[in-house]
Amino acid sequence: MTFRLCYLLAASIFILLIPGLSEGGKLLVVPMDGSHWLSMKQLVLKLMDRGHEVVVLIPEVSWQMGKGQSYTVKTYPVDYTLEDLDNSFAEYLSVHLNSQPFPMNALALYNVSKRTFGVFLSQCNNIFRSTEIMQYLNQSDFDALLTDPIALCGATLANYLSLPFIFFMRGFPCSLHYDAPQCPSPLSYVPRLFTFNSDNMTFFQRVENALIALLELVYCNGFYEEGLKFSSQILQRDVSLLDLLNGASIWLLRYDFVFEYVRPVMPNMVFIGGINCAQGKPLPKEFEAIVNASGEHGIVVFSLGSMVSDIPMKKAREIADALGSVPQTVLWRYTGKVPSNLPQNVKLVKWLPQNDLLAHPKTRAFITHGGSHGVYEGICNAVPMVLMPLFGDQMDNAKRVESRGAGLTLNILEMTSEDMSNALKTVINDKKYKENIKRLSELHLDRPIHPLDLAVHWVEFVMRHKGAPHLRPAAHDLNWIQYHSLDVIAFLLAVVLLSLFISFKCCMFCCRRCCFKKGRTSKPAKSKSH
Amino acid sequence: MTFRLCYLLAASIFILLIPGLSEGGKLLVVPMDGSHWLSMKQLVLKLMDRGHEVVVLIPEVSWQMGKGQSYTVKTYPVDYTLEDLDNSFAEYLSVHLNSQPFPMNALALYNVSKRTFGVFLSQCNNIFRSTEIMQYLNQSDFDALLTDPIALCGATLANYLSLPFIFFMRGFPCSLHYDAPQCPSPLSYVPRLFTFNSDNMTFFQRVENALIALLELVYCNGFYEEGLKFSSQILQRDVSLLDLLNGASIWLLRYDFVFEYVRPVMPNMVFIGGINCAQGKPLPKEFEAIVNASGEHGIVVFSLGSMVSDIPMKKAREIADALGSVPQTVLWRYTGKVPSNLPQNVKLVKWLPQNDLLAHPKTRAFITHGGSHGVYEGICNAVPMVLMPLFGDQMDNAKRVESRGAGLTLNILEMTSEDMSNALKTVINDKKYKENIKRLSELHLDRPIHPLDLAVHWVEFVMRHKGAPHLRPAAHDLNWIQYHSLDVIAFLLAVVLLSLFISFKCCMFCCRRCCFKKGRTSKPAKSKSH
Repeated sequence: MTFRLCYLLAASIFILLIPGLSEGGKLLVVPMDGSHWLSMKQLVLKLMDRGHEVVVLIPEVSWQMGKGQSYTVKTYPVDYTLEDLDNSFAEYLSVHLNSQPFPMNALALYNVSKRTFGVFLSQCNNIFRSTEIMQYLNQSDFDALLTDPIALCGATLANYLSLPFIFFMRGFPCSLHYDAPQCPSPLSYVPRLFTFNSDNMTFFQRVENALIALLELVYCNGFYEEGLKFSSQILQRDVSLLDLLNGASIWLLRYDFVFEYVRPVMPNMVFIGGINCAQGKPLPKEFEAIVNASGEHGIVVFSLGSMVSDIPMKKAREIADALGSVPQTVLWRYTGKVPSNLPQNVKLVKWLPQNDLLAHPKTRAFITHGGSHGVYEGICNAVPMVLMPLFGDQMDNAKRVESRGAGLTLNILEMTSEDMSNALKTVINDKKYKENIKRLSELHLDRPIHPLDLAVHWVEFVMRHKGAPHLRPAAHDLNWIQYHSLDVIAFLLAVVLLSLFISFKCCMFCCRRCCFKKGRTSKPAKSKSH
Repeated sequence: MTFRLCYLLAASIFILLIPGLSEGGKLLVVPMDGSHWLSMKQLVLKLMDRGHEVVVLIPEVSWQMGKGQSYTVKTYPVDYTLEDLDNSFAEYLSVHLNSQPFPMNALALYNVSKRTFGVFLSQCNNIFRSTEIMQYLNQSDFDALLTDPIALCGATLANYLSLPFIFFMRGFPCSLHYDAPQCPSPLSYVPRLFTFNSDNMTFFQRVENALIALLELVYCNGFYEEGLKFSSQILQRDVSLLDLLNGASIWLLRYDFVFEYVRPVMPNMVFIGGINCAQGKPLPKEFEAIVNASGEHGIVVFSLGSMVSDIPMKKAREIADALGSVPQTVLWRYTGKVPSNLPQNVKLVKWLPQNDLLAHPKTRAFITHGGSHGVYEGICNAVPMVLMPLFGDQMDNAKRVESRGAGLTLNILEMTSEDMSNALKTVINDKKYKENIKRLSELHLDRPIHPLDLAVHWVEFVMRHKGAPHLRPAAHDLNWIQYHSLDVIAFLLAVVLLSLFISFKCCMFCCRRCCFKKGRTSKPAKSKSH
């Protein structure tokens, strides 16, 4: 603890001194709505603090963006309402909460994801349709563009404006965030997203991993089809997914190998997992009172993330039952109808200071949907987790925490009240979980520089040097056959086969000569007999 | 300049604050003699400053080690003299300076390298033979072992003492520093050491690269044969090169991608290229006087490294001729017989403050053998280079600098006086070289943390956490076939072929049934005719 405090003090002084160095660049930010924005906002605020002119391009209608605008905001008109946006997400979520057999579930997921992607694509369309915005962007002399590229819009805009660009993200589907920067992903120990495998796979899991990788070739092209059509139209050339993405100067990835499986990486990937973990602040009075009243048993923090604060009543009742079975006070972020069986020890709140609560020494467990922000806050504050993944990368995150022995995963669709109660009691009472998460936390926090400062450094690096071309691998100039040396293998094989063939022919020729000689010398009688 | 100064100030304060955090561990250091020791010594001194107990294990007879012992030294007796050591290096160097046709040169190099390696192996043998040393090591409770592993001794000792270990190095032959941590090295754009290719290879260079990689399978096993026999004997089990090396917790590699070709890396590789670049200090009076007297033309710094200060007289005369052709004052580190044609503008010195001279604004060029320390000092101080590589990785280093347009390479065996004169004039007068090295320098120095502090962090990390098992890829648990998914490919191929075969058989069966039916219905007459 002393170590961490001293470290933070030293780091703060180091960072306080740095602002004097920055000469003030001009950065365009194209963010992604929803929870994606939460950690990017911290980076934007820090860059503002350091004297840069940061312009955030946001739609007039959004969930998380636009609030608390201490940064410069440029809004563009959109052709949908907040209700449309909410309905789109509600539809997306409902598909995840509906239990359907395979392959119906996969197909439904694919279709709803494509429709949700369509909403973000329409945002992008709105930017390029707005003459005022485009005129502003063309006339502003930006040094670089920072974007969460999941919806491709930032990458399209950066290519259009010929700006060096930085990606800030958790990950693409289909491992595009590894394929685009030409990073090898050996299928034998690097599990593909959504397989829920660990890095230690059985033979059949490895077969599954290979099949999923093959399937992804179709999946992502289909998924991004409309987006690519749009980008091609804007950039007036045919662009593939990799064309559009491989120009990123730096990939700021919200990953840390304490939590992620170890794998090859590239020098222009910067790992900033845990960037959202702030130091715990004192709790607001009403929360402080609840925590203090919890006695020796302490509290449990329960949140399904910034996007989900309501669930079907049947599920809510089951969960309420389970929460009543533990002696801890449970703080549950929930905005739905109050379940009639809500136990005494459960306090429903519309919002909670998640990181500050997790940092409180009385917190015994964290019930989470497994979103990456929450999981990193759980790790930073060393709180064992019960994970109920809903969508996106959450199942993979949950499996990673479980594989490290720092939490237990439940299937929210199939779990019973008893399952949840057991899981919660286990992570609280079995010391192994607390020990494991404490070890992960210590490893995660023992780093030479805070992820936020690292992200700031690399954004400024790209602004100062107009990109980072020295970190671009020469692999980008090779085609698939050349990259995998298939032409070299074919050539060497041809040389070997030709050599063998010539040697064989020579041997045959020599043998024939010998036989012929023998024939001439040893069997003259026979010749004569004809 | 202001930027760099502010940055260094901030970094220094950050680092000054950190010592208070360290709780003082106990580190065993097994270094490598020669220039290898120069930058490791800086790390050792810094770790000492931070309150750790650092024990450096060195032979009684050595070139560079043992001097200025502010660190704790433990010496062990050896069965050779300093003269033996010098003769061994002289023999090693002479093979490089003798022009022989291929494959005689390659064979001679292989043999002399193996003999030189034998000297370092005998050092290792001496450690394990010394009862006193082994007793001391067994009884001391070290937290970790830091070693330059090129001669395998440190890795053997760490395995023997079951200590977590950190490698500090420039690189192994045969890319072992990538193979051992399971880092992919695509042959299509990652040039093997000693091929002198860049990352942008023609088809035939790629063929050459593949053939060299094949050859290395034989080369390194032969080269390290005796060393592995020794390690197997000590560890009482059969160890392969990869077995011995893959346990390293962290690989501190003296690489920077400003200078190196971009390629995949692994999370436990930490890049500390330029760790040896200190901020330029004021020059000693005698050097200050020479530099000041050089007038508007400035000076040229000429050194063939810490190990080579003498060359054959014929070569020395040629070089002296070339140096006389430029108006700059040349400071040449040279201890041999003074060439009779030594021009007025050349000052011979037995030692020179290389980094401080390179940092002087009057320095116009750096003539170097291309050792990695010198090259990084050239980059840090933005001085264009003329490179005359002698041995080891120097030719590769030289080619890298040349490929970045920051210097010119000469073949010391074949160059004429005119070649050298032309090269020197070109790098001084063609502004392109100064611009390129300035750009490299700016990119290299723009980093979030100084390489020395980064190295300190990771050594302390391993000491604090008894290793870094969370950075060990699961690939270590796979065999070659599994790693490359050959079993999965074979299985999937078998399934596809079997499916095709069954489908084909079914089709055939159906066809036959159809034909048979047709036969029975349409040709009854013929049947009857029999």
